[in-house]
Amino acid sequence: MEFSSKLLENAVYEMSQLPGVGKRTALRLVLHLLKQPESQTGRLAQALKSLREEIKFCRNCHNISDVELCEICANPKRDSGLICVVEDIRDVMAIENTSQYNGLYHVLGGKISPMEGIGPQDLNIASLVEKVKKGEIRELIFAMSSTMEGDTTNFYIYKQIQDREVRTSTIARGIAVGDELEYADEITLGRSILHRIPFETSLKAD
Amino acid sequence: MEFSSKLLENAVYEMSQLPGVGKRTALRLVLHLLKQPESQTGRLAQALKSLREEIKFCRNCHNISDVELCEICANPKRDSGLICVVEDIRDVMAIENTSQYNGLYHVLGGKISPMEGIGPQDLNIASLVEKVKKGEIRELIFAMSSTMEGDTTNFYIYKQIQDREVRTSTIARGIAVGDELEYADEITLGRSILHRIPFETSLKAD
Ligand SMILES: [Zn+2]
Ligand SMILES: [Zn+2]
Repeated sequence: MEFSSKLLENAVYEMSQLPGVGKRTALRLVLHLLKQPESQTGRLAQALKSLREEIKFCRNCHNISDVELCEICANPKRDSGLICVVEDIRDVMAIENTSQYNGLYHVLGGKISPMEGIGPQDLNIASLVEKVKKGEIRELIFAMSSTMEGDTTNFYIYKQIQDREVRTSTIARGIAVGDELEYADEITLGRSILHRIPFETSLKAD
Repeated sequence: MEFSSKLLENAVYEMSQLPGVGKRTALRLVLHLLKQPESQTGRLAQALKSLREEIKFCRNCHNISDVELCEICANPKRDSGLICVVEDIRDVMAIENTSQYNGLYHVLGGKISPMEGIGPQDLNIASLVEKVKKGEIRELIFAMSSTMEGDTTNFYIYKQIQDREVRTSTIARGIAVGDELEYADEITLGRSILHRIPFETSLKAD
């Protein structure tokens, strides 16, 4: 692509760095912004900058939060002995949306994936094991997506804590194997949390 | 969607204002940015802001340009008596890419569309008619997409200038009727410019 303007070329290039956004799409998005009032672009640029510069993660559950301790962790009505282990913030949002869950979360920030060079040390696993060792956790619910990486991650954590006094469970597989949690409908997802099964049972089922 | 962070919610909202970007996609894009170095978000935000604030349009052809007179209009080797009338900058880029055209352009900035409330006064039509009236234009090539709006726009301009000493032509319809110019392959598009036909002839063909 040959651009008549360096400013345009630069904006299109940066936009096309987003996943799933090719050069043509980037150009279309940028030309759209040019047709809108200048304030819209200003708000978008400022919102992205503010988020990236001021972003905080809850010191307890690693969820994205504007304060040190997120709303969920800070809520005394939530059951702090029950922890749902998820991959990322979208899973927290999906489960919260079901209104079926009253425990806390632990956001790992990804899953173990040797192919992508992501090991246990790249995820928030140590702090989870630490929490369990303190003996204040009654049950861990593994709610990772049921892919090979999800299973590997669950099993890795399970191995680290299996000698401890903590129950482990996985959400019921009402969700099709291989499906992403965030695309599940609320009812299926809510039910799969209510009907969670002991983690050992899920191992035998395979 | 319930967000655990106002900063996140705001960034997702602004991102989802882009055409074709839903809330889920916006969240995915924003979370991707959070996993990248802070500098990437900074560059994106700055590139969009700079473009929107410093953008200029060529005073002759209305193409996006960083200077008052775009590279094409400022090039003494281009044939200034020949003007290709296009909808937007993407069409200029597509035609330039064929290396088959040596005239100048006139970027209308859209097409007449009563449905979307876009009339002739919303487009760069007056300045085109003015150029023709000065008597320095030998030929106008209509290169709008062959949709009803494109045809309407061509015809509107044609009516304004038909009493003037100027030849009018349309690019040859090697391009499928209804297709967007920017998605045509280079060879077809290049040929359709070389084999352009008088505008009157294209009217009879309908
Ligand atoms: Zn928290
Ligand atoms: Zn120009």
